[in-house]
Amino acid sequence: MVKIEPFSVEQWMDKYENIATYNIAETCCDPLSLSGLSELSLEAGDRPFGNLFDKILNYGHIRGSPEFRKNVSLLYPSSTLGAFPDENVLITPGGIAANFLLFYTLVGPGDHVICMYPTYQQLYAVPESFGAEVELWRLEENSGFAPDVEALKRMIRPAKEDGTGGTKMIIINNPNNPTGVTLSTETLHQIVELAASAGNIPIISDEVYRPMFHSADTSTHPPSIVDIYDHGISTGSMSKALSLSGLRVGWIAARQHSVIEACATARDYNTISVSQIDDGIATYALSPTVVKKILKRNLDLCNTNLRILDDFITREVAEVSGGRWKASYTKPTGGTAAFVKLMSKDGRPVDDKRFCELLIAKKGVMFLPGGVCFGHGKEFEGYFRIGYVCETEILKSGLERLGEFLKEEQVL
Amino acid sequence: MVKIEPFSVEQWMDKYENIATYNIAETCCDPLSLSGLSELSLEAGDRPFGNLFDKILNYGHIRGSPEFRKNVSLLYPSSTLGAFPDENVLITPGGIAANFLLFYTLVGPGDHVICMYPTYQQLYAVPESFGAEVELWRLEENSGFAPDVEALKRMIRPAKEDGTGGTKMIIINNPNNPTGVTLSTETLHQIVELAASAGNIPIISDEVYRPMFHSADTSTHPPSIVDIYDHGISTGSMSKALSLSGLRVGWIAARQHSVIEACATARDYNTISVSQIDDGIATYALSPTVVKKILKRNLDLCNTNLRILDDFITREVAEVSGGRWKASYTKPTGGTAAFVKLMSKDGRPVDDKRFCELLIAKKGVMFLPGGVCFGHGKEFEGYFRIGYVCETEILKSGLERLGEFLKEEQVL
Repeated sequence: MVKIEPFSVEQWMDKYENIATYNIAETCCDPLSLSGLSELSLEAGDRPFGNLFDKILNYGHIRGSPEFRKNVSLLYPSSTLGAFPDENVLITPGGIAANFLLFYTLVGPGDHVICMYPTYQQLYAVPESFGAEVELWRLEENSGFAPDVEALKRMIRPAKEDGTGGTKMIIINNPNNPTGVTLSTETLHQIVELAASAGNIPIISDEVYRPMFHSADTSTHPPSIVDIYDHGISTGSMSKALSLSGLRVGWIAARQHSVIEACATARDYNTISVSQIDDGIATYALSPTVVKKILKRNLDLCNTNLRILDDFITREVAEVSGGRWKASYTKPTGGTAAFVKLMSKDGRPVDDKRFCELLIAKKGVMFLPGGVCFGHGKEFEGYFRIGYVCETEILKSGLERLGEFLKEEQVL
Repeated sequence: MVKIEPFSVEQWMDKYENIATYNIAETCCDPLSLSGLSELSLEAGDRPFGNLFDKILNYGHIRGSPEFRKNVSLLYPSSTLGAFPDENVLITPGGIAANFLLFYTLVGPGDHVICMYPTYQQLYAVPESFGAEVELWRLEENSGFAPDVEALKRMIRPAKEDGTGGTKMIIINNPNNPTGVTLSTETLHQIVELAASAGNIPIISDEVYRPMFHSADTSTHPPSIVDIYDHGISTGSMSKALSLSGLRVGWIAARQHSVIEACATARDYNTISVSQIDDGIATYALSPTVVKKILKRNLDLCNTNLRILDDFITREVAEVSGGRWKASYTKPTGGTAAFVKLMSKDGRPVDDKRFCELLIAKKGVMFLPGGVCFGHGKEFEGYFRIGYVCETEILKSGLERLGEFLKEEQVL
């Protein structure tokens, strides 16, 4: 009956997230409530959402309220391509719906699609479910998940003279989930050059973790794909960097207006409009002064928590276990996740699935098995995705209990 | 670039709904605000949504909160098939997403699908976009859009011995949009018998207008498809009968739990979860005492407004125009729409597209051209869909201006 494989990450989350005491699997920055958002953003006594009570709950503005689209456009700073036009923003119920809509609109049977890997399973599984031939552009595990632009170059198929047969789209994810790797400005320009010269192949960049570039020099923060490429398409959401996943608001921002028109046409068949209440709250949260406060809170949280995680991985794992376990990772420069490898003393990777199951059963600590959730049981054995931008106390307690677990468990 | 034709209804709505003074095109019962919902349902001073401010806005319950699923299950009364199980309810961002998800999950290239016609374009266009062979089961215009069960019988393909090749699903819409026709209990049982005997073909019934059976005797209200068929699947939403389209909350209710599991698996790729704020408000609105009050308000509104519309169609059109125009329709027994045919004295149908364009330009009155929006320019010339369950004053004023228009316009 099912035309698509189960989504490993979502299934694992759904199975365990409501029983975990210490959920350090989630990649949203510690979520806010409306009260929390008010406290963070307002002077005492103010209530920003009062007028929502009087809003007539009809379908509202189908493509998103003008204020919402304006505030999203401001997230993409003016570049050599000009200011980002409001009308090139389309609201969707979450970032996941933005990606899905792009694939539903643009991808058909036989299309050649290139997708960065590892990444969020949706980005290659959905194009495949629409009949595309998906090739994975691998971040190289042995070189710290560095992108290999030469390898990408070899994969791209230029269009034939009649315009057919070429690569239909290139899909990237920056910062990357699960590795926390950031594609640099230089790398992005190289990718754009390849795509442009092969016939302006659209590049879809899942940028839901943008602008969480916590560990890169401010001056070197990479641009959005729409800041540097006329055929760039960015997807974003309120969920990850903005701590409001309960709103279910995301967006497509495309330099080519025709992409927005095509998506809006297809979207009439699965969305109509997005929650009018969520649109109102998201518009408030994205207003220039408020969004700055949320991002500052979350970047601070990233930095604080990454220090704790880094210390745990580089020092504590070996120390608490008397050298029986060792951990390694490429320290994230962006995003909210780290992809950590855990091995026995002799370098044998642990069984990540069994490890996660035991850990949650014995200690209530949840993170994601990398082999199961990102390698489909064939790669990334011994890896774990840790979502470290939860409440600091949860991370600390979770790692403490993980330490106990590593101390107690002799073999796995 | 686009794989699917534009959705005529949605495009027309999007184009005109924000410039219309008298919108009598919309099929939602007059929408409520949160304040309006409070006033309708509570004693003075109470505020039902206060706790939403303190709800942490994470993804929440992926399949819908337990309370939401419970309240939806109560909309399907216990029948010979037993009480409807909560776990057979899956929340979606709107009824449109519920239908889309079912097709994405269940329909593939070459599948034979039967769909009632005329109806909401999504119900046949989306299966087609997934490669299905869609056959239209026509309501007969000449007999008041009555369903012809014998015709359906001829269309159904029983499965071969190996289980393949049979009709994959039958799609109905009850009450029907745009005609307001209700499939009776007897007809529903006949359809179920055909589907069951051909190998338990699933019947998907879009029941977003349920339970707006305003003009049928209470004792003869037709059941939901899930009350009478073990392979029945009902979709519903907060939008139409419940006046809360701005929430974007719908659901799938399936008698077979395996359908819910399959949909949930596919849904991981395009939804994750539904707005936590909307889930909370919808749960409140669906609680047994509140839902009763909303439905009573809306059934009263249906009856009041249908009397006004009926008088206009059967008497005023001819009267105000001195007999130069005449109108006919099958009086709706359910739902919120009427499908009205407008003709010149000599029986020639008007150009519905041009008529609607002129009417909105000159009088600010909006309804939908039936030929364009339901007949794809090939059928239903001269028809209009009127959504008559708006505010009564809007309907009155809109029809008054329509009367003026008919009086003034000599030819069209």
